[in-house]
Amino acid sequence: MPVLCRPAVAVPEHVITLEETLELGARIHIGHAELPLALRLIRNTGVRRRHLVQPIAETLRHPGLEARNLAYVREARARVPAVVAQALTHAAVRPEEIDAIVFVSCTGFTMPPLTAWMINELGFRTDTVQIPIAQLGCAAGGAAIGRANDFCLAHPGSNALIVACEFCSLCYQPTDLTVGNLLSNGLFGDAIAAAVVMAEGGTGFSLEHTGSRLVPGTEDWIAYAVKATGFHFLLDKRVPGTMEQLAPALRELSAEHGWDAGDLDFYVIHAGGPRILDDLSRHLDVKPEMFGCSRATLSEYGNIASAVVLDALRRQFDTGELRTGDRGLIAGFGPGITAEMCLGTWTA
Amino acid sequence: MPVLCRPAVAVPEHVITLEETLELGARIHIGHAELPLALRLIRNTGVRRRHLVQPIAETLRHPGLEARNLAYVREARARVPAVVAQALTHAAVRPEEIDAIVFVSCTGFTMPPLTAWMINELGFRTDTVQIPIAQLGCAAGGAAIGRANDFCLAHPGSNALIVACEFCSLCYQPTDLTVGNLLSNGLFGDAIAAAVVMAEGGTGFSLEHTGSRLVPGTEDWIAYAVKATGFHFLLDKRVPGTMEQLAPALRELSAEHGWDAGDLDFYVIHAGGPRILDDLSRHLDVKPEMFGCSRATLSEYGNIASAVVLDALRRQFDTGELRTGDRGLIAGFGPGITAEMCLGTWTA
Repeated sequence: MPVLCRPAVAVPEHVITLEETLELGARIHIGHAELPLALRLIRNTGVRRRHLVQPIAETLRHPGLEARNLAYVREARARVPAVVAQALTHAAVRPEEIDAIVFVSCTGFTMPPLTAWMINELGFRTDTVQIPIAQLGCAAGGAAIGRANDFCLAHPGSNALIVACEFCSLCYQPTDLTVGNLLSNGLFGDAIAAAVVMAEGGTGFSLEHTGSRLVPGTEDWIAYAVKATGFHFLLDKRVPGTMEQLAPALRELSAEHGWDAGDLDFYVIHAGGPRILDDLSRHLDVKPEMFGCSRATLSEYGNIASAVVLDALRRQFDTGELRTGDRGLIAGFGPGITAEMCLGTWTA
Repeated sequence: MPVLCRPAVAVPEHVITLEETLELGARIHIGHAELPLALRLIRNTGVRRRHLVQPIAETLRHPGLEARNLAYVREARARVPAVVAQALTHAAVRPEEIDAIVFVSCTGFTMPPLTAWMINELGFRTDTVQIPIAQLGCAAGGAAIGRANDFCLAHPGSNALIVACEFCSLCYQPTDLTVGNLLSNGLFGDAIAAAVVMAEGGTGFSLEHTGSRLVPGTEDWIAYAVKATGFHFLLDKRVPGTMEQLAPALRELSAEHGWDAGDLDFYVIHAGGPRILDDLSRHLDVKPEMFGCSRATLSEYGNIASAVVLDALRRQFDTGELRTGDRGLIAGFGPGITAEMCLGTWTA
C-alpha cells in the first residue's frame, strides 16, 4: 500500500500579522461601506499571521500580469529546491529514485510546468513523469495525494513526489473590492510544501482509499475570473456553509472503507477558514480539538491553498502522538466545489 | 490491461485553407523582412486546411484576455458535449460509468476546470475524479493516455474519459511577429477529441507500457510567455530538429518492453510539423507511409495540439487495417521538450 511520507513545508520570510492586516485594510479601504464587516470577518478567521514572498509594500503593488507571473517563476525556482530536498530526505529517497512529480499550484501559470525546470536542475531523471495540476485550487493538495497514490498503485515499486507551490499574495488584485475579496486579502498566505509517496517501504500515512466529490451546482462559488490583470478570485458567501454537503461525502467514503468518519484517530482537514472546521466538527460529531493541526496551519500561516493539507499533516507528524494502526482522514476542499479525500492508517 | 477505445473527434465549422492562410499572411505582414521565409515555412508544413471556432475576421481581432477566455469557455461548453457523447458511444459506456475525467487543454484557462461543468451538466457522477492538465501543451494528449492508464491500473474495473479541447486560434497574438509566430499562425488549428480508457473490456489500443522523456536543456524551446494579452507562444527554431534526441527515447521505451521501435505495425505520432514525421521516419528507419494517419491529421486539421494523437488514432481505427495483436506506438511531443509515449497492442 503506498505510503505518504513526512511532508516538508517552508513559508517565506516576509510576515504580516493579523493586527497589521486589519490596520492596513482599514487604511486602504477607508470609506468602503462594508469595511467593518470585512474587518470583522478577517478577525474571525483566526489567522494570526501570514508569510509572503515579497515585502508588504511590494505585495500591494500590481506590476501587471507579465511581471507578476515572472515573479512567481523567480520565487518558485528560488524556494522550491530546499523544500523538495527536505521532503526527499524525510523519505530517504534520492532525486533519481523519483518516478513522477505531481506539481500543484493555482497562483501562477507556466508552460512548460515547473517540473521541466526541476528535472533539468534538481537531479531528477529525464523519464520522470510530469503531472502538473493548476485548476483545482485549494483542493489540489488532496488531489495530488490521490494522483500520487494512483501512480504508485499503477507502477509497483515507484516513488512519486508531490509539490504544492502557492504564492497567493501574487494574486492580490487591488481593484477587487467585494467583501469576499477583502476577506480573501486577509485570509490567504504563501507557502511551499512537498512530500514523497512511496509504493513500497516508507513510514507515515499509509494510503488505503481515496475519493473525490463535487457538490452539484456550486461551480461558480469559488472561481477565477481570468482577466488582463491576472486571476481574480471569486468567493461566494455561501462557501463557508458547504460542510453541510461535504460532510456526507466524508461519511460515505469512510463507510465504503468500513470506517465511521466520526470515529477516526486523526484528521487532516483543509483549513480554508474557521467555519469549515467548526461546521465539520459539528456535522461529523468530532471534538474540535481533533482538528488542532489544521487549526494551527490556519492560525500561523493563513489559508495556504493546496499546501494546507500537507502542512497540517506535517504538524500531525510533529505531534509524535500517532501510533501504528491509527486511522485517519485527509480532506482537501476547493473550487468545483470539490472535496479530495484520502483514508489511511498510520505506519510508524 | 486497460484499453484505449475509439476516439471521437470534432473540428469547428469555420475553415481556412492553405491558400487563404498564405494570402492573409502576405497581406497582414506586407513589408515584414522575413515574410517570404515565413510563407515558405507555412507552405512546407503540408497543412492544407484548418478549422476555427470563429470566422477568420473575428479570429484576427484580439478582444482582450478576458473576452478571449470567456469565448474559450463558451465554445468549449457548446462543443465538448457532442464529442464526449460520441466517445462514450464508441466505448459503449454511459456517463455514470465513468470514474475519472482527464481534461487536457492549453489554449484557455479556468478554475474550476471544465470537468466541474461536465459533472454538473453531462450526467457524470459527483464522485468522478477530475484530472485537469493545462501545462503540457501538445504533449498532453499522450500524457492524458498515460494518466488514464495509471488511473485504470490503480482502480480495477474503472473507466477514464479523456478530453482534449484545443482552440489554438484563441491564442492568436497579432503583435507577435517572429518567424516562429508567423509560422505558428499558419500551422495550428482547433479541435476537440475524446476517448474512453477501460480497465476491463473494450476494444482498440490495449495499453501495455507508458513512459515520459524530457530532453534536457530545452525548457524554453516551446513555451508560453504569460502577459496581459494572454498566452504568447514561443517557438524556437531548433524545435523541428528534436527528433534526433527523442527517437532514442522511443527506442529505449520499446526496448524496455522487448520491442523494436523501428519494427512496429502502426504508429500514432504527434504531427507537430512535417519535419517531425520526416525525421522520425529516418531516425527509426520506418517507412514514411507508416505515419500516414498522423500526416493526414496535419494536412487536414493542422497541428491541433493535444488532440493530434487522438485524431491520428481515430484515423488508424478508420483504416480498418489493423488486426488483433498488431503492435503500435503512440507518441505525443510538446513543451519541456517532453515526449509522452504509450506502447500497446491492437485488440479488435
